[in-house]
Amino acid sequence: MAQNILVIGGVALGPKAACRCKRLMPEANVTLVDENVFISYGGCGLPYYLSGEINNIDDLRATPYHTIRDAGFFELMKGVKVRTQTRAMSIDRAAKKVLVRDVVSGHEESLPYDKLVIATGASPRIPDVGGSELSGVYSVTRLEAAESIRKACEQGKVSQAVIVGAGFIGLESVVALADMWGVSCSVVEVADQILPGVLSADLAQMAQTDCEKHGVSVYTSEKVVSLEGENGQVARVVTDKRTLPAQLVIFAAGFVPNGVLARDAGLNVAPFGAIEVNEHMQTSDPDIYAGGDCVALTHKITGKTTYLPLGSMANRQGRVIGSNLAGAREAFPPVVGTWAVKLFDLSFCGVGLTVERARREGFDAAGVAVEQMDRAHFYPESNMMTLELVADKKSHRVLGMQGVCVAGDALKARIDAVAGVLQYAEPTLLDISNLEVCYAPPFASAMDVVNVVANVAENVFAGRMKPVSAREFADLWAQRKENNVFFIDARPHGGSAPLAAKHPGEWNAISLEDIAAGKVAEVPRDRPVALICNTGLRAYDSQLFLARHGIHDVVNAMGGMQAVLKAGKNI
Amino acid sequence: MAQNILVIGGVALGPKAACRCKRLMPEANVTLVDENVFISYGGCGLPYYLSGEINNIDDLRATPYHTIRDAGFFELMKGVKVRTQTRAMSIDRAAKKVLVRDVVSGHEESLPYDKLVIATGASPRIPDVGGSELSGVYSVTRLEAAESIRKACEQGKVSQAVIVGAGFIGLESVVALADMWGVSCSVVEVADQILPGVLSADLAQMAQTDCEKHGVSVYTSEKVVSLEGENGQVARVVTDKRTLPAQLVIFAAGFVPNGVLARDAGLNVAPFGAIEVNEHMQTSDPDIYAGGDCVALTHKITGKTTYLPLGSMANRQGRVIGSNLAGAREAFPPVVGTWAVKLFDLSFCGVGLTVERARREGFDAAGVAVEQMDRAHFYPESNMMTLELVADKKSHRVLGMQGVCVAGDALKARIDAVAGVLQYAEPTLLDISNLEVCYAPPFASAMDVVNVVANVAENVFAGRMKPVSAREFADLWAQRKENNVFFIDARPHGGSAPLAAKHPGEWNAISLEDIAAGKVAEVPRDRPVALICNTGLRAYDSQLFLARHGIHDVVNAMGGMQAVLKAGKNI
Repeated sequence: MAQNILVIGGVALGPKAACRCKRLMPEANVTLVDENVFISYGGCGLPYYLSGEINNIDDLRATPYHTIRDAGFFELMKGVKVRTQTRAMSIDRAAKKVLVRDVVSGHEESLPYDKLVIATGASPRIPDVGGSELSGVYSVTRLEAAESIRKACEQGKVSQAVIVGAGFIGLESVVALADMWGVSCSVVEVADQILPGVLSADLAQMAQTDCEKHGVSVYTSEKVVSLEGENGQVARVVTDKRTLPAQLVIFAAGFVPNGVLARDAGLNVAPFGAIEVNEHMQTSDPDIYAGGDCVALTHKITGKTTYLPLGSMANRQGRVIGSNLAGAREAFPPVVGTWAVKLFDLSFCGVGLTVERARREGFDAAGVAVEQMDRAHFYPESNMMTLELVADKKSHRVLGMQGVCVAGDALKARIDAVAGVLQYAEPTLLDISNLEVCYAPPFASAMDVVNVVANVAENVFAGRMKPVSAREFADLWAQRKENNVFFIDARPHGGSAPLAAKHPGEWNAISLEDIAAGKVAEVPRDRPVALICNTGLRAYDSQLFLARHGIHDVVNAMGGMQAVLKAGKNI
Repeated sequence: MAQNILVIGGVALGPKAACRCKRLMPEANVTLVDENVFISYGGCGLPYYLSGEINNIDDLRATPYHTIRDAGFFELMKGVKVRTQTRAMSIDRAAKKVLVRDVVSGHEESLPYDKLVIATGASPRIPDVGGSELSGVYSVTRLEAAESIRKACEQGKVSQAVIVGAGFIGLESVVALADMWGVSCSVVEVADQILPGVLSADLAQMAQTDCEKHGVSVYTSEKVVSLEGENGQVARVVTDKRTLPAQLVIFAAGFVPNGVLARDAGLNVAPFGAIEVNEHMQTSDPDIYAGGDCVALTHKITGKTTYLPLGSMANRQGRVIGSNLAGAREAFPPVVGTWAVKLFDLSFCGVGLTVERARREGFDAAGVAVEQMDRAHFYPESNMMTLELVADKKSHRVLGMQGVCVAGDALKARIDAVAGVLQYAEPTLLDISNLEVCYAPPFASAMDVVNVVANVAENVFAGRMKPVSAREFADLWAQRKENNVFFIDARPHGGSAPLAAKHPGEWNAISLEDIAAGKVAEVPRDRPVALICNTGLRAYDSQLFLARHGIHDVVNAMGGMQAVLKAGKNI
């Protein structure tokens, strides 16, 4: 007899699982219910609709061949029955039925299933503050909200906006509003940095500088207390530190997995509300699958439960669930947490743990960052790339990598290369030193930046180099009266002269060539030395030269002036 | 007592090994000898000097911080003694000495070593044809040759050039000459395709079309017989099929490893002349290391000996050798053969085996290709990417991936992601289906092309889809009178109308929507059907629809019209 497959939720995972199952098992009755009007849309594209880069919101609901994915499409083209505006109220696991309600008519009925898929997604986390019901307050997770925000921008009703939360969607919305509509944006983030959890404090400083350079006010370690309105329309955001005028407020403070339906049905749910699944994406009831933004996943590196609400994860999980509904036993592998976000001038990508998270997870970890061109340094049109590698200092196990570059695809290439290895192996620094990435001068350096960052980490861990980050270097400089550090700018004089002139007797322009040509004698032996150059390379050669002449109390500014500038530090 | 480290060869691996060793073991006496004047240059950059993109040839000899890497640089900055124009004549392993000769004075002496590094590189393979001694005949492997060729171009002396060999350097030289200097170029390749060994015949056809679109004549399965000159200057290239006028001839027909010195010293050398080394890069004499273009390597996928003369390989091996000279026991991992080349409009990258090579190696392999945008299809400025995945049909083990795209970095990202997994694991199709690459709409699709190509391969191997390549589709079309195939163009009518008008009654414009809306009744049930659309997606949905209506003798043109156009096929 034909099986009844019922899918609850129709945004990303639900349709994928339903269609895949129906393709493999054409005789099955596959039904999908969703409480909303619109289904199967690219929610990740909403910030680009907000900005106007995507002109028509229907593009987010269309196949690559420009057919709108509505109920009729799934029925006719895929053989999947779709019921929109139909809310799943409860699951009767003993009877294998789901009670659903038509949200328009209120009519309720029970739908039988042999296999059930829960793809209920997540809801935006709305802080419990007064005024969130005011007009002009949104979260960018549904098509309708994005349409309203864009209309308000087009009508010139928004000159100031406050974005609450500096994660991916928050910052993508900021870029859309500031870059495309000239809206004056403020970002309020409760953590002590933007992009918390995915970028180190050092790289987050670069992201913040990119935002601030484009007129965005960034307030970290700050909490929204209330929203104030005028005539029902939001007018001001009150934080624990200031009041910000705003005609538009976007809540982008993360997501809460929609696990209540599963929990109420007695399925295992993680403490933070996400549904627990095994490697086959089955819940604690083997006839019920779950996936996407409503489930808890296993992190490959920590071995612990994690949460990763991303459209790409949902799509891949949906295919695995679709196969398994049709009788396969495919496994969805533990995750490593890749991500990417494009801000103003700079793109950011990452995988695995940041140095701060690695330490919280109990690793004796360090982060080592380099600046190097993204292709052969002699090739025209190369771009400076920052890569930070996170590894365990003793075992040399690689725990993560994050990066910054103008060239987003080039950065993605380095992170994805490491991501694949992290996902399916347990690489050490030496493995990344020898990572065999595509090479030709228009694509990479012969010793590519992704290899170099592992080489440098190995040198640092072996004690051959004492690095300081751009922020640490700036701090050393700020406290130069107290710490008695001797600063050497090892760049050629054309590079170092302006700062040497600005800080006579403090900023010492002694190029690598000078040092090698005898000026090593001018370097004091009774003071700590801090070396800096453009990217860190000359400083390293200088440090080795000093070491050969008995000067060992030397730190090297990782990433050099390039990193200092990206971090927005003034010397 | 301080060890004597002697390095023979100073281009890529030699200097890297010497400097790394000296850094780790500052007390060692490290000496490098090279028979040429110039050392430590980026040979891979020569085509870009040829083109003028790199203006000054010294840029290829400079560090990223613009210091020329000559003997003085290595001595002063790195503590490595360098003797140029010093040829290693023979190795006395018993006495641990190398006999060297000053190529200017003829003076000979013996240099002692505790550890020796052979980094003698490779020589261009010059076919044994008459006339190769004529003026105007070069190989692009040394700075001096590149300078002469560029000077001849600048002086307007070259209007026609013949490049012998359609590998990386040959084609990079073609692009330099044709694109930058307007030289009329012909490529003569003895194999039956360009980029033999690294691209499938199907993708090679796309590379050839890119060349031909830019006025390059490509002659495959053709052999140079002789060169003819006038007044000592080359004037014509005679092949086994034609005579080509040429004022410039470049031999780019591969490399021969320089293994004679090692062989004469009794070290193990592979039949093709490359020096055999273990995982620590030691030759059969544990005190003698070798690496770079002169050694044989182990291929991770085949487990067999392979040869991979690339600057990136040499640099990474050099670091491993440097560490091991200083007492470490680092291993250099088996290789997977990543590569990249930028032609005119298109970039090409790959890793692992092509389908043809996989079959020659004994795998029951198939190649499956897709066309998909390199980022979210709704994101502006996306580019069509071709990816071909090679896998074993029974085990689903992934053996290689190659691709084509306008956006080189975006292509590199996909290939590098797979390369990392191939290098350190043994992935199946399902692993690549679930490969966790960085995702956001400006970087990738939610179901990214690298995942999709594995999904499609799985469908093909399971018999759910019968693909034909663009070439096979074009062949079916050419023989339509004989094979009675019913052709369906499933694109919207705007796309299919021109061809339907050109071929009435033969090219059937029946869109996916038409089929679904009832035109399935017009599809004959007694003839084989060939489906095509823009990329393959609509055709696949059409095929599934036909299958649900009992029509199963259907093939699907992989990559659709996009692949047909890239392959230069006319319908």
